[in-house]
Amino acid sequence: MEQVRIGMIGYKFMGKAHSHAYRDLPMFFPDTAKPVMKVIGGRNGEAVRRAAAQFGWEEASTDWREIVLRDDIDLIDINAPSDAHKEIALAAAKAGKHLFCEKPLALSLGDAREMLQAAEEAGVKHMVGFNYRFAPAVRLAKKLIEDGRLGRVYHFRAVFLQDWILDPDFPLVWRLDKRVAGSGAHGDLGAHLIDMARYLVGEMTEVVGMSETFVKERPMPSEMTGLSAQGSKDAPKGEVTVDDATLFLARFANGALGSFEATRFAAGHRCTNGFEINGSLGSVKFDFERMNELQVYFKDDPADVQGFRRVLATDPAHAYSEAWWPPGHTIGYEHTFIHEMVEMMQALQENRQPVPNFHDGVSCQAVLEAVERSIDEKRWISIADM
Amino acid sequence: MEQVRIGMIGYKFMGKAHSHAYRDLPMFFPDTAKPVMKVIGGRNGEAVRRAAAQFGWEEASTDWREIVLRDDIDLIDINAPSDAHKEIALAAAKAGKHLFCEKPLALSLGDAREMLQAAEEAGVKHMVGFNYRFAPAVRLAKKLIEDGRLGRVYHFRAVFLQDWILDPDFPLVWRLDKRVAGSGAHGDLGAHLIDMARYLVGEMTEVVGMSETFVKERPMPSEMTGLSAQGSKDAPKGEVTVDDATLFLARFANGALGSFEATRFAAGHRCTNGFEINGSLGSVKFDFERMNELQVYFKDDPADVQGFRRVLATDPAHAYSEAWWPPGHTIGYEHTFIHEMVEMMQALQENRQPVPNFHDGVSCQAVLEAVERSIDEKRWISIADM
Amino acid sequence: MEQVRIGMIGYKFMGKAHSHAYRDLPMFFPDTAKPVMKVIGGRNGEAVRRAAAQFGWEEASTDWREIVLRDDIDLIDINAPSDAHKEIALAAAKAGKHLFCEKPLALSLGDAREMLQAAEEAGVKHMVGFNYRFAPAVRLAKKLIEDGRLGRVYHFRAVFLQDWILDPDFPLVWRLDKRVAGSGAHGDLGAHLIDMARYLVGEMTEVVGMSETFVKERPMPSEMTGLSAQGSKDAPKGEVTVDDATLFLARFANGALGSFEATRFAAGHRCTNGFEINGSLGSVKFDFERMNELQVYFKDDPADVQGFRRVLATDPAHAYSEAWWPPGHTIGYEHTFIHEMVEMMQALQENRQPVPNFHDGVSCQAVLEAVERSIDEKRWISIADM
Amino acid sequence: MEQVRIGMIGYKFMGKAHSHAYRDLPMFFPDTAKPVMKVIGGRNGEAVRRAAAQFGWEEASTDWREIVLRDDIDLIDINAPSDAHKEIALAAAKAGKHLFCEKPLALSLGDAREMLQAAEEAGVKHMVGFNYRFAPAVRLAKKLIEDGRLGRVYHFRAVFLQDWILDPDFPLVWRLDKRVAGSGAHGDLGAHLIDMARYLVGEMTEVVGMSETFVKERPMPSEMTGLSAQGSKDAPKGEVTVDDATLFLARFANGALGSFEATRFAAGHRCTNGFEINGSLGSVKFDFERMNELQVYFKDDPADVQGFRRVLATDPAHAYSEAWWPPGHTIGYEHTFIHEMVEMMQALQENRQPVPNFHDGVSCQAVLEAVERSIDEKRWISIADM
Repeated sequence: MEQVRIGMIGYKFMGKAHSHAYRDLPMFFPDTAKPVMKVIGGRNGEAVRRAAAQFGWEEASTDWREIVLRDDIDLIDINAPSDAHKEIALAAAKAGKHLFCEKPLALSLGDAREMLQAAEEAGVKHMVGFNYRFAPAVRLAKKLIEDGRLGRVYHFRAVFLQDWILDPDFPLVWRLDKRVAGSGAHGDLGAHLIDMARYLVGEMTEVVGMSETFVKERPMPSEMTGLSAQGSKDAPKGEVTVDDATLFLARFANGALGSFEATRFAAGHRCTNGFEINGSLGSVKFDFERMNELQVYFKDDPADVQGFRRVLATDPAHAYSEAWWPPGHTIGYEHTFIHEMVEMMQALQENRQPVPNFHDGVSCQAVLEAVERSIDEKRWISIADM
Repeated sequence: MEQVRIGMIGYKFMGKAHSHAYRDLPMFFPDTAKPVMKVIGGRNGEAVRRAAAQFGWEEASTDWREIVLRDDIDLIDINAPSDAHKEIALAAAKAGKHLFCEKPLALSLGDAREMLQAAEEAGVKHMVGFNYRFAPAVRLAKKLIEDGRLGRVYHFRAVFLQDWILDPDFPLVWRLDKRVAGSGAHGDLGAHLIDMARYLVGEMTEVVGMSETFVKERPMPSEMTGLSAQGSKDAPKGEVTVDDATLFLARFANGALGSFEATRFAAGHRCTNGFEINGSLGSVKFDFERMNELQVYFKDDPADVQGFRRVLATDPAHAYSEAWWPPGHTIGYEHTFIHEMVEMMQALQENRQPVPNFHDGVSCQAVLEAVERSIDEKRWISIADM
Repeated sequence: MEQVRIGMIGYKFMGKAHSHAYRDLPMFFPDTAKPVMKVIGGRNGEAVRRAAAQFGWEEASTDWREIVLRDDIDLIDINAPSDAHKEIALAAAKAGKHLFCEKPLALSLGDAREMLQAAEEAGVKHMVGFNYRFAPAVRLAKKLIEDGRLGRVYHFRAVFLQDWILDPDFPLVWRLDKRVAGSGAHGDLGAHLIDMARYLVGEMTEVVGMSETFVKERPMPSEMTGLSAQGSKDAPKGEVTVDDATLFLARFANGALGSFEATRFAAGHRCTNGFEINGSLGSVKFDFERMNELQVYFKDDPADVQGFRRVLATDPAHAYSEAWWPPGHTIGYEHTFIHEMVEMMQALQENRQPVPNFHDGVSCQAVLEAVERSIDEKRWISIADM
Repeated sequence: MEQVRIGMIGYKFMGKAHSHAYRDLPMFFPDTAKPVMKVIGGRNGEAVRRAAAQFGWEEASTDWREIVLRDDIDLIDINAPSDAHKEIALAAAKAGKHLFCEKPLALSLGDAREMLQAAEEAGVKHMVGFNYRFAPAVRLAKKLIEDGRLGRVYHFRAVFLQDWILDPDFPLVWRLDKRVAGSGAHGDLGAHLIDMARYLVGEMTEVVGMSETFVKERPMPSEMTGLSAQGSKDAPKGEVTVDDATLFLARFANGALGSFEATRFAAGHRCTNGFEINGSLGSVKFDFERMNELQVYFKDDPADVQGFRRVLATDPAHAYSEAWWPPGHTIGYEHTFIHEMVEMMQALQENRQPVPNFHDGVSCQAVLEAVERSIDEKRWISIADM
């Protein structure tokens, strides 16, 4: 499989990020199967045609069912709003298409499992869009852990802090509507933390959480868009039905302790997606706002020069870096998507499942829902019971 | 009261810090009542006499009861191991002495309440040693909150990370023995976080926590000292009876959400006592390893220059700073104790209760125990039920 | 002019960066004139054909003269080694082509002036590749200065620190050969600092410098490439004919004092291209390794919250940022080239000279040579005398 | 010599710092000869008596000549304004007293040499107050260099940035008067950088500099004090006769290149006394505003974890640290003076010259004056010619 013909459903924030990834991939990873940008789909005909032209897709369509059934499509990329993921995925799997689905995989654990089952029964490849795994600095953390250089992991603590809805007059966009988004900070941001934890530390066994909606009503927007929105503060108000912030504690199967916090109410944090891992031999720290850097500490460094070192993950020794620029020349957010699509393309090329895939989407959803249940029932919830 | 005659029980880590504070105070705060270093007490006669000479006390004694009863003593400073706090405090209160007691106030909430009651019945002044409140950068955080410059507080997250017992062969010192220390990271480090939370954000209403002892057995030490210890890794082992790490979530009475983590297993962190507060108008961040600095963010800064600013709290506008050096010339750990003792001396001078006092010690103990109960019972615990 | 047909001479490090810029530009800046990637040229036929395929050029050619004369080309992009810039530029100007030339514009001030004259006589547009001007954080610094928010500028200090030839066995690549590269750290890195100084502070009036070649002989490489090189440490050695490091002091016309340092021998610095500007009202600091950030200080902030604030230049208030991702989602090195090409395309669209252009290239070269002369003559040199 | 009886001339900023050092020293360094605070001298009788009481001196005197001649004094500590250093030092040496003199040693190289000669002829011990050498993080830098762990030194770059006279209405204090202060930023701040360079890298061979007084007139102060001053902006103005900023380049005898900048016009920098050293095997960075930290880089670290590590110089492996608090508990500005006085006391105890001594004061003065001459003559000046 030297070319992968893609039909993509969705054309907003994630649609743009994916399109760019497909567009840049062959230039920097010329040995990887080449994505062919066949058709982009969305509900608003004019908008989707404009997106097709701007992003570089051959065709535009307002009928995702038609796209899914086309013979000249190998892979369906689903980045429509979360409430549409399942229906599209099931149809695409049935049509024998490989699947790339943005996170969260689905609005519920049951739906996610159904999607995984459909993909497995159809025998197609499936991937889920946890893009932060693909930052070279995160890959370095993974390598250090896998090589045993951090020893036994004792602690994982992670925060995903944003502040884009701090203003109480920010309008009630779809991400604040539970029916469309499933959940708020928890599903949007916490899902990334959970995936990172699973990727780097392993499975969790039990969780307990708490959650809050600080601003309970907001003005209805005149026009809804991805992350931005037009709206008057004097517009009629609607109820915010998702969480503004969710925190939880977790135990991992390997004995580590975890702390998680996702919030959209952390003034000054545009996109602080950060974690720290402490092991018996060392520690690592990451903050997405400085995504090219990993802070690394080794307990067995000489006694007079122990300290966190700031590794700029742009050297040849770092994953993906040789495809880019000389050491010290940094990359950005969009590159996580390019690397993600490299994994998808290589998996198809090598006829294997990409990682992370729907199994990871399901496992993440199980933790998300366990946390929600623990909040409802005010007690610890075992992941095994989900 | 222009002079305060002090009898101090304890002469190790905290004893040294307090002695130095008394010694330096008159030079930098000449308008404050002057501490007179009358007598220092401890069990080991030779050691306490050496401490008296080195630290500058007039006399040494191995009999704390004798010290407590002396007519020429105004204030008893208790920094002996935690299990001795209560007995000394009760006797000193009964003798009409003012009280300064290191944290944790006592080994249990019941004991702490008994101590508060004794102090109140005796009509003496009482203070508890939450020294981190007295860093100028922390004072600045307090001022910003009190002046409303951070708005409504949404989040408080705090960690106290150390790594001094990371090595499994580090011996079983008294701080790892529940009978003497009461608890481990939770009571030693978490107590500081709880006090900071109460100081800056207010009272908590409910908590849920988890705890772990990663290294369950350690070699018995040949000689026990404060934080350091001699010992052979081949010595017989004893059981570690306190927590290596404790985490908890909390809700505050004002609606804020809190996250707390105290651990002695965070490789690379010698003394990361840090917190962040996010409010509706701004945020502050503090890390004790850079104790002269406060990171401050204001939501309403001009749109093109929003960002956390690093304030070096050494300007005349900052608490205590004019007593020290010109702007940019930093102070250290020991200065928190000097400022703490300034508060004690000024309170005596002004015939008022110092802050923080035994009320704060009791409230802190209530949260500590609520967390412990929540761990035992695996559920949320209301502070009001303690 | 809605489309700009490009012929590009050069296909290595800069060729890749420019190609990518042309490729991505229409997706993120759809209202800008569209670059059409017509033909790429280079000496090695196989390599240039491979580059054409990988980077997305319609054709490849080994004859730059043929490219320059083609009727279907509007703009010649010159990023061949520095010793070839002049000849290509003169021929292209004569053929009426618009010019984009990588820095340094030429190997000497005389050559640079000749190129400017040729471009002006031909009436074509001309631009020089000082890409660091186009980082949004640098644009913010410019805006703050232009708006008077830093007041009168007192100090500009800048360093460009790298370490890629620290190893004495690193081979003698073309960048270490004066005949091809013109100069070493001075022309390669110092040129960027000089341009930044001129952009942000203004013209310099006099300079004094010093220079050193720490490793005077290196193994000859078996194969020469851009920044990397294969080579054996046992290969015969050749003389390094350029500077490893050059430092100079400068006075600006507006009274400011400047300090400049360019070196390839700063262990631990992969690409620290940093500057700081201190004015009567405030300061800014920039480090390219954290290129999304600008540190900003205002003298007139309230007395208790003065400090450098870390501005993440990814907000809508920052140049170029709305074309990219939501606030907090960073961009990388390559984006400086995309923005640079946006300027080139918009200038052609609007029939104006782009900035920076050959005038800036000439002025930069004048400072470079004045520094070299000051080193030779061990005295201050006036820029006006060049 | 188990006790050293001290007479100190001067009682302001430095007088306070020295007094505190003498006061604290015996508590933290009990094995060192004990300083006895006999008598403090100054011109203003009331002020000096107040200082004696506050700082803990046995007596006060307004007659330095009387102090110098007293039989019960072993060491004269000179921290009066710089123009008084020489006369006091010569008299004290003649009286056979050991000497501690604040920097700058004298107002001219000639005077400094005269002082050295006097001390040598009298056979007394002599020390000069370059206190920044005594930060544990700086000691670590020294150790790494001496142990060869940074290899051959290529670069030393240092800045001392302050902003306390940024406001043009700040009054004309004595430090801005050449007759009293000798020079401005150069002698006050640059002297520290020069000493640091000599301490860490070695002697310089030639220098070239530039200098500026940005604000040429200032209001006369109503009352002059150390660093602060009362004054009205409407007061009559006087001429500023010292430099606001001085920069220079230097070559070291070992082939390294040096860059130095001292300024009082760097907005946002209260006390940024920082340096970086790049060697063939590694680098170190220091900033006094974070004086407990040293950034350390080793070229030969494993390829995937290379980066500057932040070493908190508070571990037992770090100089002086065991005298203080547990790892991670930082110290401040004043501790540099305590360590400095430990060196003075130990030298007397061990009957050896302390380091740095008047030789270092003379060498520093030679560089200071060479820079001044290079500014006057607009050319490079050889240190050997001074």
